[in-house]
Amino acid sequence: MSTPAPATATLLVSCRDRTGLVAALSDFVFRNGGNILDADQHAEVETGLFFMRLRWDLATFQLARPEIEMAIRVLAARYELEWELTYSDVRPRVAVFASKAPHCLYDLLLAHQLGELGGDLAVVVSNHEALRPVAGHFGVPFAHLPVAADDKAPAEARQQELLDQQRVDVVVLARYMQILSPEFVARWPARIINIHHSFLPAFVGARPYHQAQARGVKVIGATAHYVTSDLDQGPIIEQDVARVSHRDDVGELVRKGGELERRVLTRAVRLHLDRRVLVSGKRTIVFA
Amino acid sequence: MSTPAPATATLLVSCRDRTGLVAALSDFVFRNGGNILDADQHAEVETGLFFMRLRWDLATFQLARPEIEMAIRVLAARYELEWELTYSDVRPRVAVFASKAPHCLYDLLLAHQLGELGGDLAVVVSNHEALRPVAGHFGVPFAHLPVAADDKAPAEARQQELLDQQRVDVVVLARYMQILSPEFVARWPARIINIHHSFLPAFVGARPYHQAQARGVKVIGATAHYVTSDLDQGPIIEQDVARVSHRDDVGELVRKGGELERRVLTRAVRLHLDRRVLVSGKRTIVFA
Amino acid sequence: MSTPAPATATLLVSCRDRTGLVAALSDFVFRNGGNILDADQHAEVETGLFFMRLRWDLATFQLARPEIEMAIRVLAARYELEWELTYSDVRPRVAVFASKAPHCLYDLLLAHQLGELGGDLAVVVSNHEALRPVAGHFGVPFAHLPVAADDKAPAEARQQELLDQQRVDVVVLARYMQILSPEFVARWPARIINIHHSFLPAFVGARPYHQAQARGVKVIGATAHYVTSDLDQGPIIEQDVARVSHRDDVGELVRKGGELERRVLTRAVRLHLDRRVLVSGKRTIVFA
Amino acid sequence: MSTPAPATATLLVSCRDRTGLVAALSDFVFRNGGNILDADQHAEVETGLFFMRLRWDLATFQLARPEIEMAIRVLAARYELEWELTYSDVRPRVAVFASKAPHCLYDLLLAHQLGELGGDLAVVVSNHEALRPVAGHFGVPFAHLPVAADDKAPAEARQQELLDQQRVDVVVLARYMQILSPEFVARWPARIINIHHSFLPAFVGARPYHQAQARGVKVIGATAHYVTSDLDQGPIIEQDVARVSHRDDVGELVRKGGELERRVLTRAVRLHLDRRVLVSGKRTIVFA
Repeated sequence: MSTPAPATATLLVSCRDRTGLVAALSDFVFRNGGNILDADQHAEVETGLFFMRLRWDLATFQLARPEIEMAIRVLAARYELEWELTYSDVRPRVAVFASKAPHCLYDLLLAHQLGELGGDLAVVVSNHEALRPVAGHFGVPFAHLPVAADDKAPAEARQQELLDQQRVDVVVLARYMQILSPEFVARWPARIINIHHSFLPAFVGARPYHQAQARGVKVIGATAHYVTSDLDQGPIIEQDVARVSHRDDVGELVRKGGELERRVLTRAVRLHLDRRVLVSGKRTIVFA
Repeated sequence: MSTPAPATATLLVSCRDRTGLVAALSDFVFRNGGNILDADQHAEVETGLFFMRLRWDLATFQLARPEIEMAIRVLAARYELEWELTYSDVRPRVAVFASKAPHCLYDLLLAHQLGELGGDLAVVVSNHEALRPVAGHFGVPFAHLPVAADDKAPAEARQQELLDQQRVDVVVLARYMQILSPEFVARWPARIINIHHSFLPAFVGARPYHQAQARGVKVIGATAHYVTSDLDQGPIIEQDVARVSHRDDVGELVRKGGELERRVLTRAVRLHLDRRVLVSGKRTIVFA
Repeated sequence: MSTPAPATATLLVSCRDRTGLVAALSDFVFRNGGNILDADQHAEVETGLFFMRLRWDLATFQLARPEIEMAIRVLAARYELEWELTYSDVRPRVAVFASKAPHCLYDLLLAHQLGELGGDLAVVVSNHEALRPVAGHFGVPFAHLPVAADDKAPAEARQQELLDQQRVDVVVLARYMQILSPEFVARWPARIINIHHSFLPAFVGARPYHQAQARGVKVIGATAHYVTSDLDQGPIIEQDVARVSHRDDVGELVRKGGELERRVLTRAVRLHLDRRVLVSGKRTIVFA
Repeated sequence: MSTPAPATATLLVSCRDRTGLVAALSDFVFRNGGNILDADQHAEVETGLFFMRLRWDLATFQLARPEIEMAIRVLAARYELEWELTYSDVRPRVAVFASKAPHCLYDLLLAHQLGELGGDLAVVVSNHEALRPVAGHFGVPFAHLPVAADDKAPAEARQQELLDQQRVDVVVLARYMQILSPEFVARWPARIINIHHSFLPAFVGARPYHQAQARGVKVIGATAHYVTSDLDQGPIIEQDVARVSHRDDVGELVRKGGELERRVLTRAVRLHLDRRVLVSGKRTIVFA
């Protein structure tokens, strides 16, 4: 996963009736000279939906990319598929939104520098100047877009403009301390990843470490999820926890939690960029 | 910790002003020929309360037990202590309440058989007959006390009577599927330990695994807590978690959760019986 | 996973060249009216080997079992497959070997009673009488086969005879304190599962908790592995760990470790019985 | 722990006979107007040694620092104590040795910047130039001291000179890829902290991730330990682990392991700088 590799294609599909689908897709890859590298599938009992991720080698594949897309379109029509097709050499472009806390941003930037992220960091956007040197140190452009407390619309318009201009595919909220408007969120369905500093659904909303300390929990957590218009209710991609005790005051919870937040967020971003995450209603399927 | 040992005394104290308290207690033990085995303390910043656990060897101690208690009374008056004094050879007596699910009960009974619990299982109480053979296999008395759906008072009266008669010190709810009345709970403050099958405060109330599955969490948990009259709101003693994925249906969450429930409950019971738990409002101090 | 289900077929295969294999197997299932429930695969870079697990619904499948086997034989010849085909309604039969420690045995027996094991416990075999009541409580036959220190061959002959007579498929060593001879082990390749009380490869051999305590580790572990003629060197199926500290003496390590051992062993047995484990040299592929 | 606080004194002691020691030390603090903030103790059964950590508030303490030291000297003579006395406002100075891998260095530098380390980073020392910009970004001096493969003595002499000149208290090897000579190590007893990329004692020596992959473990780990002249045999301060599977090739183990290494090392350094670690032979006592 960490070494450069020849180009591969990844197809994500979901559909209602899968009869014959696996055979049809496998056969499509095989007949055209491809080699299946990963094939993961999941049938969701509650909804009757079927999800699949297929990744194959393009080195010996006999179809050109437009032909592949044409062929998938035909299959999609026959099996009524929702689908998404990507190529490993067309790297997704990521915008990171941050405020003043640097820890999650550093972790993403370092993962990127180490070649551990299957995408590129296009820009760091912040409502403060504080993190400009951090982005600069890693050679990533930084945009300071202040947000007015009483009217966030102009800031969001400038953010959207910047994202369009930078051809951004996914937005990562790395402890970004502003709530995005439903209109903004609606333009980025399953394309905004947030880190919440609790094991959701416990402690939604503000100051979760204070809530955790008051409740006297013995475990704290962090949750990376897609943003929807319901605060802290979006589909969960990844969670992790750490043990705490009565000795840990809020400051210590913040420190231990910060360690969790950064690694949970970076993991979730990596999973998303590797096209391992599908959304089904309020849940995710993660082909890890 | 698992081998038999000569008698020790354990003193738990809490107070408002600790100035000189540690010195006074240490000096008391030392001057009377005792050897301090454990000394744990905690100052709670939010409340200004101070908590301490002191355990010392009685083998060479020069005071008899009534004299020890007399001396502690004098210190308690001077320092305005809440206190509790116990001896390792006076084993607390435990009643386990269960319904039909056997897993938590087995774990407690086995821990007891292996000599891993610092107390004795006096009786298993159930509103069903199903677990009678389990108690019998381990040689623990079993009482079937049915609970009427429309009037629980008679059952609780018989339960209380049985607990009195058996000189029970602590009640453990091992997946007992009845809600105890506030009156019953009030008679056993910080003396009833429950296992809830979620990482509280997430998923309070009924069917937490169904709630967890619907929310799409990536981690499930179990929580052992003291029972108060607020459902699932009592002070948490111990929690633990397990990873789950989209592949885990509710049945699999129940299975993975069952593995968690039993070990979290048994750990909490052990901590309580070893006199390692103090309560401060909605929180516990656990000197593990 | 915990509810009874209509019969399914599970095919495990390994081979050298997989070109077209996934398509061929998928197509085989599809053309005969089957529904693929699970399809997991793994290409091992180091060896060039390819592994696959395919599970499909037999409810609507148009081939009878002898026909299925015939068809697989044809495919196996074409693709040079190693393969194993099983049916969910033909439950594997398990023999548990134990000595005096009851904790792992209880956990397996309870998992079986709760319907969480995809196999049946045919017999408990022990070189001591101590655990007879445990097997009896769960209604599983118990055989006391003493092992002479100076000549183990007669005992192993009687064990083998019993296993044959009981049509046993897999042997589980639940803290069985005798080393099996290479001859015995050779008759049960990847069919004997042992629990070792350390995170292998650390602390092979005797008294691993004493070794762990002497080395001052901060984490202890347990390892379930297939038994080979090299002591504690067989392919690892499952491992887990627990934190320890300087406060934990050897007795406490034994207690904490016992909690680990039982759940790691039961998990490994469940994975094996669900046909989720394939062996590749010294490693396992676990399609969990 | 993360907020600035008035000065405190921390006393670490070890001794053979503790009779009266706790009382004497508590009394010393109390009589001079101090307030005990932490008092941790441990009696090691195997060696008969007793260890204690006492931390008290200096705000109202009536003795000046030279007087405190004088008093401790008297107690130390009476009780035959090994002891170390430090003050929270005299921050230990840390040198970080690194080579080319940046992840552990970033984590330490970030923890320092966030005020989470109870010490100061005096200098980053490296046998390569690669990490100079990293140190520079965080405003920490960087020294490039090349090490000749055939004669390391001159480099070590320059390192020692630099450490002396910078008044360094502790050396942290943050994936430093050179083995220090026994002479160098002997000058820094329990003062050099290394991170080894396995859960020791498994996989000592070179390329532990390759070893782990070959052995097919299901868990990998990282170990922070004090360096002694026996390679990878020094007293362990902290360990942690992560689950892996057959899907993880060596590159992925390196990535997952890198996440472990950085947080285990930073935790160990924090524990050391907070004076929470005592050494007893091959083990540590960690008063966390």
